[in-house]
Amino acid sequence: MEYFAGEYDVVVIGAGHAGCEAGLASARMGCKTLMCTMNLDSVGFMPCNPNIGGTAKGHLVREIDALGGEMGVNIDQTFIQSRMLNTSKGPAVHSLRAQADKKRYSERMKHVIEKEENLYLRQIEVIDIKVENNKVCGVLTKNGAYFKTKAVILTTGTYLRGKIIIGEVSYSGGPSGLFPANELSQKLIDLGIELRRFKTGTPARVNRRSVDLSKMIEQQGDEKIIPFSFMSDNIYRDQVSCYLTYTTDDTLKVIRDNIHRSPLYNGTIKSVGPRYCPSIEDKVMRFPDKEKHQIFIEPEGENTEELYVGGASSSLPEEVQLAMYRTIEGLENVEILRTAYAIEYDCINPQQLKLSLEFKSIEGLFGAGQVNGSSGYEEAAAQGIIAGINASLKIKEKEPLILKRSDAYIGVLIDDLVTKGTEEPYRMMTSRSEYRLILRQDNADLRLTEIGHNIGLVNEERYNKFLKRKKTIEEEVARMKNVQINPKKEVIEFLASLNSTELKKSISLYELIKRPELDYFKVEPLDNDRIELPDDIKEEVNTISKYEGYINKQLEQVVQFKKFENKTIPDNINYNDINGLRLEAVQKLSKVKPMNIGQASRISGVSPADISVLLIYLEREYRSKSQSN
Amino acid sequence: MEYFAGEYDVVVIGAGHAGCEAGLASARMGCKTLMCTMNLDSVGFMPCNPNIGGTAKGHLVREIDALGGEMGVNIDQTFIQSRMLNTSKGPAVHSLRAQADKKRYSERMKHVIEKEENLYLRQIEVIDIKVENNKVCGVLTKNGAYFKTKAVILTTGTYLRGKIIIGEVSYSGGPSGLFPANELSQKLIDLGIELRRFKTGTPARVNRRSVDLSKMIEQQGDEKIIPFSFMSDNIYRDQVSCYLTYTTDDTLKVIRDNIHRSPLYNGTIKSVGPRYCPSIEDKVMRFPDKEKHQIFIEPEGENTEELYVGGASSSLPEEVQLAMYRTIEGLENVEILRTAYAIEYDCINPQQLKLSLEFKSIEGLFGAGQVNGSSGYEEAAAQGIIAGINASLKIKEKEPLILKRSDAYIGVLIDDLVTKGTEEPYRMMTSRSEYRLILRQDNADLRLTEIGHNIGLVNEERYNKFLKRKKTIEEEVARMKNVQINPKKEVIEFLASLNSTELKKSISLYELIKRPELDYFKVEPLDNDRIELPDDIKEEVNTISKYEGYINKQLEQVVQFKKFENKTIPDNINYNDINGLRLEAVQKLSKVKPMNIGQASRISGVSPADISVLLIYLEREYRSKSQSN
Repeated sequence: MEYFAGEYDVVVIGAGHAGCEAGLASARMGCKTLMCTMNLDSVGFMPCNPNIGGTAKGHLVREIDALGGEMGVNIDQTFIQSRMLNTSKGPAVHSLRAQADKKRYSERMKHVIEKEENLYLRQIEVIDIKVENNKVCGVLTKNGAYFKTKAVILTTGTYLRGKIIIGEVSYSGGPSGLFPANELSQKLIDLGIELRRFKTGTPARVNRRSVDLSKMIEQQGDEKIIPFSFMSDNIYRDQVSCYLTYTTDDTLKVIRDNIHRSPLYNGTIKSVGPRYCPSIEDKVMRFPDKEKHQIFIEPEGENTEELYVGGASSSLPEEVQLAMYRTIEGLENVEILRTAYAIEYDCINPQQLKLSLEFKSIEGLFGAGQVNGSSGYEEAAAQGIIAGINASLKIKEKEPLILKRSDAYIGVLIDDLVTKGTEEPYRMMTSRSEYRLILRQDNADLRLTEIGHNIGLVNEERYNKFLKRKKTIEEEVARMKNVQINPKKEVIEFLASLNSTELKKSISLYELIKRPELDYFKVEPLDNDRIELPDDIKEEVNTISKYEGYINKQLEQVVQFKKFENKTIPDNINYNDINGLRLEAVQKLSKVKPMNIGQASRISGVSPADISVLLIYLEREYRSKSQSN
Repeated sequence: MEYFAGEYDVVVIGAGHAGCEAGLASARMGCKTLMCTMNLDSVGFMPCNPNIGGTAKGHLVREIDALGGEMGVNIDQTFIQSRMLNTSKGPAVHSLRAQADKKRYSERMKHVIEKEENLYLRQIEVIDIKVENNKVCGVLTKNGAYFKTKAVILTTGTYLRGKIIIGEVSYSGGPSGLFPANELSQKLIDLGIELRRFKTGTPARVNRRSVDLSKMIEQQGDEKIIPFSFMSDNIYRDQVSCYLTYTTDDTLKVIRDNIHRSPLYNGTIKSVGPRYCPSIEDKVMRFPDKEKHQIFIEPEGENTEELYVGGASSSLPEEVQLAMYRTIEGLENVEILRTAYAIEYDCINPQQLKLSLEFKSIEGLFGAGQVNGSSGYEEAAAQGIIAGINASLKIKEKEPLILKRSDAYIGVLIDDLVTKGTEEPYRMMTSRSEYRLILRQDNADLRLTEIGHNIGLVNEERYNKFLKRKKTIEEEVARMKNVQINPKKEVIEFLASLNSTELKKSISLYELIKRPELDYFKVEPLDNDRIELPDDIKEEVNTISKYEGYINKQLEQVVQFKKFENKTIPDNINYNDINGLRLEAVQKLSKVKPMNIGQASRISGVSPADISVLLIYLEREYRSKSQSN
């Protein structure tokens, strides 16, 4: 019995990480937004790893935050450990990661949504999307409600015809014991949308009392916590530890002895899983020479004994899983609370989308998150916020927001998905970006908050905070350009004490710190008028000054790179011979056999870095042939 | 692919309120216990009202606690409002009720279970119970694990072939968007177990921002909080308010105009629902003269805007629900977050059980909670603890624990279910007990903790605390018996000031306070040697002293009552004519037409109080007939 249940500007289907950002963005931009979830208790639910951020993913969270999204604020309020990763490397790859209290994360996100003006959360299952003249006009729910709307955002995650697979056992099911959505897929097919099956998986959860943490390497949080959100002030919080351990020879043996029972290897699972998040059996079989694999033991929350066994997702039969986990150092007596599983689900070929994340063939229908073929909470949220923004801009009859590859990792993510497509669940990595030094996590606000404000998503509080931060950075950079350091005796002595070469003539402080052995912090004794600034400002000023040359160089390389677009690749090239080419690139290039660099650069999974490696190889080959001729 | 997954003494199927107590009791008594749930995130989940306790139910919680159960401690740790109900009435019906933070309640219960020695929690679905020679020998899970065991406790709640019904819409589903258990029912039938269909329902959850609380009557928590658990010390906590409002004429109109679309009234729902927790449409139709019905607005937690609309469960179509809710005072603009629904589920005829809750026909198989045909979290937990205890005692080859009707409300509950059976979801009420003055909530520990200790469930900490409390009470009672009050002038004046009659001769303080106008607290000025005691001790001493006569009288009445067992009831009796007989008793007696009082007293839903009313009526009839003859 269908009934008319009202009109909304935007309807979001799903309330996972994509759905939450989509709904909040649309509502915050003033659109009356309906958010539909099959289970209100799983809003913002983390069905797999208990952390937010990490390499490249941390960048996405910062960008979502800079645009006015919620993920950064939410994890800042609910983390139980925080770490800045890769601090021994350059600032381009510094990445923040935080361990979440899963229950708190979900609870707070739901609470924010409940309180958001214009946003209407409902526990209802959407079973049909109504389209007239290739234009979205409404959705129908299982309980018979017909909602009229101008825009629909699909954020169905792994729910569409979800199928759980554990060894020889498989059954219909959503993630973590939840209901699958079995009705919507056929309607999408009826709308002419091309569906595919992807799969992903999750490791077991185990009881802390059964784990010998003393055999593992403790990983504590940072002493000084750097928040995700540009809105968060200093955070002081007791943190919990994670633990690093390893597989053993027995792990490899258990897996190899039982690989015929793996649904990945015996043909049960035909769908494609995430290359960069493989199951433990996949890692063991794909890298036969690797003697041991890292396993991360991560708490799922503060008020639970559940531990996540990171790096050991599996779809082996339950009894093989237990035997396998018990070969890992410290897990000899492990008790499993939740069995690892693989899940197959329907998703779309994202090449059906425009860069705005709107379907090319259906006006007003948007897709975001795993349904677009991505993997990961952060990738989902990043698409969610863009879909929410563009659904809202569409309602307002404005141009869509399309972030360029040089604007944001979000731009790279969406361009990769939509332009290149993906044959497997897509994960963000710094190597996918050709503008790494520009797209740092620390300057996400400088890159994006103005944009977020222009479209009406960044509120005045955030915008004013941003303007203040921006002004302070600019003033400090300007001041440093004006501070002249003269080759006085004390200066020369001071520089010598830092093993820095003699100063021959006057130079601005700004230029001086470009010397590799110096930085903004070290030259403080030379900088008499320096005022005390917040840590994040100091870091920013240091990076801007110190890496200016590198950044400009990278931009030049990009311009240069375009010239190579049409450079031909010989037919008989053997990609295995090329040092420094990533395994994925070797596989993809060998398969596609591109005719030229331009074509090669557009293959999914071939990164700009791979192209550079390839260019250098071709250049050298050319020279050596020239010489031998 | 079945595999052997180990041996457990006891396997508990389900982790709701019955399952949690069953698993904890069994494990705490030293049995290696496996606890199976389809979804680890819904351990101790409250799918309906957000409170624990209430009239008679509060007694059950106290009794569970006194035996060494967890419900009382758990709600004490997680409540957001606490109230002692019925304080204007006698101590027999004082009942504690607390509003729970649902998420915290569930989270803490799960955490306790995770940490409990001997208890092994797993997210697995049991799909078969293996029986050999009418004796339980194992269970089989969906993932192929075969667990060998000597005892199985069924606590499947509303999950067995759960079916959600909302107006004309119905589909397979567990409570609140969760998965149903569709496979186990047939196995139970194959084991010769008689199943029946019961139904229950829950009201909508609404968004606080859409509710006009200023139109409602605020209900705050008690200033002085009395904990549920005898183990809890004084609790000081900020409390939230609940709100009382009413239906209007329009509510009645909406329901009456749409009653043909109610699955209860158009024949869609054939199963029987809980009489004492009817849907709003049922109340409106069954009590046509009632102009308005109470509606209680209760928060679902501290970190959510979700409000529970108590008293307004419904299975009307979604659009009728919304129209109906919007007629309630203060809900004129209400936004629904979760639609109200009815749920049908498989349960057993509890007459198949022994008083130990073991199936008569299958050794080692126990049932507890809604699957036994009861309703309510507390009723479930009460059966759960007894099933857990008796499964454990069985493993130890000891006699089962059977609480008598004079021991505890738990005894009444189980005797009612098992001996009388029930034709509808059974709810505990004080009127079901013939020993109300003995079975008070304040003396649950005095009645049961010794028993709990004897069977090995009450730990030493609790037992010592109990012994101390018991000793203090006994000493104070003894002291009061020794305090002689003489008819001195000051005493007489003091009594006169309390409107108490003159004292003629010396009397013990213990006897004195039996005067209706006096109590333990009021006579303090006469009691020079009184030492300061905890509030609960003072209350207990007061009740014991003051109501001694009533308690003894009640016991005598019970002895007397047995004599009436064989008193015949005339064929032509019209139960509608009998004043004071509850509606349910009228209906049941009219239907069954019992031949004598003994038979009448064993009819489910006919309470001892009803029998008293009936006896008085028959006595009066007999006398009036004797007179007229």
